Amino acid sequence: MSTVPTATISRLVTYLRILTQLEAQGIKKTSSEHLADEAQVSAFQVRKDLAYFGRFGTRGAGYTVPTLRRELRRILGLTRSWSAAIVGMGRLGEAIAHYPNFGAYDFLLKGAFDIDPHKVGREVAGLTVQHVDELPRVVREKGIDIGFITVPHEAAQDAADALVRAGVKGILNFAPTVIDVPKEIHVEPVDFLAGLKRLSFYILNPQLREEVA
Amino acid sequence: MSTVPTATISRLVTYLRILTQLEAQGIKKTSSEHLADEAQVSAFQVRKDLAYFGRFGTRGAGYTVPTLRRELRRILGLTRSWSAAIVGMGRLGEAIAHYPNFGAYDFLLKGAFDIDPHKVGREVAGLTVQHVDELPRVVREKGIDIGFITVPHEAAQDAADALVRAGVKGILNFAPTVIDVPKEIHVEPVDFLAGLKRLSFYILNPQLREEVA
Repeated sequence: MSTVPTATISRLVTYLRILTQLEAQGIKKTSSEHLADEAQVSAFQVRKDLAYFGRFGTRGAGYTVPTLRRELRRILGLTRSWSAAIVGMGRLGEAIAHYPNFGAYDFLLKGAFDIDPHKVGREVAGLTVQHVDELPRVVREKGIDIGFITVPHEAAQDAADALVRAGVKGILNFAPTVIDVPKEIHVEPVDFLAGLKRLSFYILNPQLREEVA
Repeated sequence: MSTVPTATISRLVTYLRILTQLEAQGIKKTSSEHLADEAQVSAFQVRKDLAYFGRFGTRGAGYTVPTLRRELRRILGLTRSWSAAIVGMGRLGEAIAHYPNFGAYDFLLKGAFDIDPHKVGREVAGLTVQHVDELPRVVREKGIDIGFITVPHEAAQDAADALVRAGVKGILNFAPTVIDVPKEIHVEPVDFLAGLKRLSFYILNPQLREEVA
């Protein structure tokens, strides 16, 4: 298998969310057309995205909701649990720590870190905030895979360096800056200012928006 | 001009961020190669993305940082100010309202809304939380362009409907669900659970990650 477009992975995540909603509604069968409608893409795109990973439906009969959902969960690595730690326990870190849907996919928050002595020792969402110096030990002892960066942008690279040294495998970066990490570490940016800037472009240029094919 | 790929708009936002950092460092000239390095794409991609909007550099001489930065701000609609309102004043809404970089691009937060009587009337980041019923009046009186949805996912569609009825032009949706809006309203999802799921895929399948060309 060669590489898979990043956009395909993003769409698989969307299809999984739609399938989860269908299953919660007791709906047993669906189609690429229905998934496409809900995900605001074309049915051709849905079939192409799934084809990277095998054959899932039956021509003319569509997909069985629980089966396709299970397969997507497996493909995305969501049938196992992941342990995460947050670096940066300001308001954003606190909001993320309390995020109610966080445990729904077996993402387990096992550590909360800061360098501010006023924050270290506080209890947040059932965790005691620890000093960033404790990261390597905690990552090793608790088997933490993923680090969340919720520090201000000027501290983001230091937070990334600390997470990489401590041995995490991936980073979810909420700071609005590109962080530099070794090639083998995957970074997913969550940058809401970037979303805002795209929004302003599309409000001013609605005619330039890609049409759903 | 035909449509512009969504991914191009996302990359323009990244290039702008890099140019802003260069300008802050007093650096006057840059190149597609440098922008590409920083944005983790190819130099060809940088040139192609910019070419949708005109000719900006000089072959061999690269780009003038302040000029390209000003052009990208203009293209993205960031030379004017945008007014925004938040619907959902739980922890996430509060964290967003306090986001320190929020004003850096003239995004002005002019309203904070909730339906919870315990939240209505509270002061958050200099705003008094109002009931969602007040949205149409406030959107009209304050010229609000953009709505942020920070409610739980089961309330997201109601929040979207209220924002659309009130007359916003675009929505930044933090709730982990697809919302249904009229075609002329642009929605940017900010879904950090989606980022987490992509992260788990790439941690398990590093060989399937798209290479930077």
